Amino acid sequence: MAPSEPNAPRFVQQGEVPEFAEERPGWGGYIEWERYPEKKKKAAEILAKYDFPVPPEYQLAPLPETNPMLEGVRWKYYHYAMGPTLKDLPDISWKYVKEEKSPDMLHVLQFPYNGEPPRVGARTCRTEITDNKDFFVRNHGGIPEIDEDAYFIELEGLVNNPQKLTLKDLKDESKFKRMSTTVTLQCSGTRRLEQIREYPGDGDELINAPWSEGAIGTARWTGVSLKKVIKYCGGLKDGATDVEFFGADSYFKKGQIYNYAVSVPVRKMKLNEVILAWEMNGKPLPKIHGYPLRVVVPGYIGARSCKWLTRINVISGPSMAPVQMKEYLYYTPQIGKQNATYSNGFSIQTMPVASAIMTPIDHDQIIHDGKIKLTGWAYSGSGWPERVEISGDGGSIWYEVPFDQMSRKYYHAWRVWEYELPVDAEGWLEFCVRTWDSSMNTQPTYVRSAWNWDLHVTSSCHRIKIYSINKSRPATAKRLKLLEEKGLSILPITRPLAIELETDEEWLEVWRKKQGREPTE
Amino acid sequence: MAPSEPNAPRFVQQGEVPEFAEERPGWGGYIEWERYPEKKKKAAEILAKYDFPVPPEYQLAPLPETNPMLEGVRWKYYHYAMGPTLKDLPDISWKYVKEEKSPDMLHVLQFPYNGEPPRVGARTCRTEITDNKDFFVRNHGGIPEIDEDAYFIELEGLVNNPQKLTLKDLKDESKFKRMSTTVTLQCSGTRRLEQIREYPGDGDELINAPWSEGAIGTARWTGVSLKKVIKYCGGLKDGATDVEFFGADSYFKKGQIYNYAVSVPVRKMKLNEVILAWEMNGKPLPKIHGYPLRVVVPGYIGARSCKWLTRINVISGPSMAPVQMKEYLYYTPQIGKQNATYSNGFSIQTMPVASAIMTPIDHDQIIHDGKIKLTGWAYSGSGWPERVEISGDGGSIWYEVPFDQMSRKYYHAWRVWEYELPVDAEGWLEFCVRTWDSSMNTQPTYVRSAWNWDLHVTSSCHRIKIYSINKSRPATAKRLKLLEEKGLSILPITRPLAIELETDEEWLEVWRKKQGREPTE
Repeated sequence: MAPSEPNAPRFVQQGEVPEFAEERPGWGGYIEWERYPEKKKKAAEILAKYDFPVPPEYQLAPLPETNPMLEGVRWKYYHYAMGPTLKDLPDISWKYVKEEKSPDMLHVLQFPYNGEPPRVGARTCRTEITDNKDFFVRNHGGIPEIDEDAYFIELEGLVNNPQKLTLKDLKDESKFKRMSTTVTLQCSGTRRLEQIREYPGDGDELINAPWSEGAIGTARWTGVSLKKVIKYCGGLKDGATDVEFFGADSYFKKGQIYNYAVSVPVRKMKLNEVILAWEMNGKPLPKIHGYPLRVVVPGYIGARSCKWLTRINVISGPSMAPVQMKEYLYYTPQIGKQNATYSNGFSIQTMPVASAIMTPIDHDQIIHDGKIKLTGWAYSGSGWPERVEISGDGGSIWYEVPFDQMSRKYYHAWRVWEYELPVDAEGWLEFCVRTWDSSMNTQPTYVRSAWNWDLHVTSSCHRIKIYSINKSRPATAKRLKLLEEKGLSILPITRPLAIELETDEEWLEVWRKKQGREPTE
Repeated sequence: MAPSEPNAPRFVQQGEVPEFAEERPGWGGYIEWERYPEKKKKAAEILAKYDFPVPPEYQLAPLPETNPMLEGVRWKYYHYAMGPTLKDLPDISWKYVKEEKSPDMLHVLQFPYNGEPPRVGARTCRTEITDNKDFFVRNHGGIPEIDEDAYFIELEGLVNNPQKLTLKDLKDESKFKRMSTTVTLQCSGTRRLEQIREYPGDGDELINAPWSEGAIGTARWTGVSLKKVIKYCGGLKDGATDVEFFGADSYFKKGQIYNYAVSVPVRKMKLNEVILAWEMNGKPLPKIHGYPLRVVVPGYIGARSCKWLTRINVISGPSMAPVQMKEYLYYTPQIGKQNATYSNGFSIQTMPVASAIMTPIDHDQIIHDGKIKLTGWAYSGSGWPERVEISGDGGSIWYEVPFDQMSRKYYHAWRVWEYELPVDAEGWLEFCVRTWDSSMNTQPTYVRSAWNWDLHVTSSCHRIKIYSINKSRPATAKRLKLLEEKGLSILPITRPLAIELETDEEWLEVWRKKQGREPTE
């Protein structure tokens, strides 16, 4: 693989190669850290020996035009430093990218793998269901390789009867009612690129990847409701407020190692809005999406939908694990590196109303005859998208997308839409979209309106710049015809026109009619 | 020299090497084209044999980080194609860049040479007079090498007594009263980079170079008023409306070759506002600035201040030469490649009110204790800058720069200014400047307000993004102290903070005071 950080120093082992064995047979790449404080301490001591390379500057300098855009050398080296159980995970994970994802994915970060479908052709939302191969991936560590037969979860904490449950148990319809539901998952980094372009922000240690509009996707998930599983465990004990999930992946933060862990409120689980899923669009979960079992939390930031689930722990208060407590925080615009704490950010759970134009693409130059077709998506984590509005002039005049040009309503999914926008004007135009949800919430106007230090939740009206060439206008039709006759193209617009724009005689005629450049008295 | 277009094809001579001799001894690199239509025709036939490389895409793709930013291969090849008299001009011109300009100039275009002083240290406007070495250069062709002793100008057209005048004649104070005056010259491409970043535009054959705020400078010019010279030639004939200037440089446009030629209205000349200058800040004109004699037209676009002057021709109507008629046109925003003509643009002469912040620089991250010092320039071609206003919040609250922090008033020059802006807020702020001139004209609000296809005259309020770190605030002071103790820097802000932002105990205390993340009922 071609590294995007060619100048990164080579990894050099510091001291003896550590031995952190896999926790269980049939669970490749899974080290249990949370149950063994001594092991965590030892790992931290090893990490402290290293001076890991800093992530490359990509916010104050132009993004590399490579694919992957960012390599994640630092994160790879964390894994190399942990010895044989983790050192191959960067390569293994990349192998699954090749096997399970479309070959033309936009690899935003190679490791931990972060990727979204390419913008051309609106692959994110051609249909209301996103193809598994095109579904965005935002992993936080390597991909564990788990045998379904060796697989089980532990359910513990503030429940009356803690249990171990195999996948076979969960699939046993005599024990658990099976459910299938259509759910959109969205990374809170969606459209981060716009925040980066406007103002750089936190170069988080787990690189705040420069996502565009494709860090969102919709699938039909099949599994069981966590509510039923909790009930099977005898229900909750007093004081239970949150449910914590642990993944088999290792997570690094500020020199410490953890298993990936997050939590959701008990209240969410009680609404049957936490699913333990083993199928994605009628197929077993891809490895890269959490095989054999993951959590799916509708309406919430994707980070709560823990993959490669190992353990469910019912607790009092939210998880103090770093992904929950120290990541995915939403700050007021004046908070930054000089004054950010964990507690002055608001933990992102339910996602706000949002939308994007997927075609055309920003900076497209379009020859049309008075109408330009747009496609896109609209989503709201706390309701459903009820109305989509399009503007061709940066947000003064709005056109409503007719309901029959929007996909069906779901409680927990986006609606994809298409619209033929009347476009008379030529030159650079600003198209934008906004969505109103079932609570009449809509989107902030500009990126600036909602910029935040961690560059999360770019929910402002999505704006693109389009160069309009309207061939229903006579002067334009004439120019296009002339270019065609000469075998020249008008595209790209920045390529010099090799022909004269008018004759001296034409110029003089206009010049006379205009009374010259200056008055005569 | 390191080319910035490494993939450009090599120049290959088509047919026989042409022989276009120099017009006069002692006038190196000067071919007279305008007096010999047959020679122009022959040159056009030669040019037609070539398929010159197109300029590199630099508007729809990130600008190269090289210096020179753009090389101008196409323009070099035009000169190579014309045979021995012009083929060495790219190298000769670059030699004068090295000899006459500061070594750290920002070389926007290597050939024809376009350059401005670097942004660091506000070299453009440290003082109201710009050092000759730092003065921007916007050439349209190669630099002719002219012996002062062989030098003369011809004055002809609608004057009663056409004359040849040597430099000695012009310097003869018994014939011509000598004048010295302080004049700002500005390229209409100043701050074009902002228009490019907002929306790409015309990739003009003579590359619309990506200037920033330094394509402006002020000098004290010494010479004679053209009005006196015209009088010496017996005054104007009936019908005279414009005065045309020819330079010794060769200019290429759409497959034709010309001498550089422009014009100004007779009315401007009559105000004593056209100077024939041989001194720049008390020194003979540098070669790169038009030695031995150039025109200086106060208040007008720099392009009218013709260098290496060969001839003055009084005419009826403006010059039909391409620089006057086909370049430097100002279009309404909906005009572009599909419908631009020469006559639907307005020829740029007098420059509008404009200003720029020179320090700090866009994207600077500044540690301060409640005040940030700004410096910059303010200019108006049709009057003088009377008031400069600074905003620290993108244009809601404006602070007036006190008059004693602005340089003196001139009729024809900028004012440089400095100001200590009160800054309380932290994080990304938008600083902007606007100027009001003596006619109470001020600047458009946004780049978008005045975007135009040729990307000229970026006169909108100049805006920069500044990351403010206010150490008079306790939380910030505490964080800076902590970083200092650990030997860490807060800069650049995008580099991950390697320390914990707060302890678990601090987090829990705030969490309790906030009543947790969610309500309990």
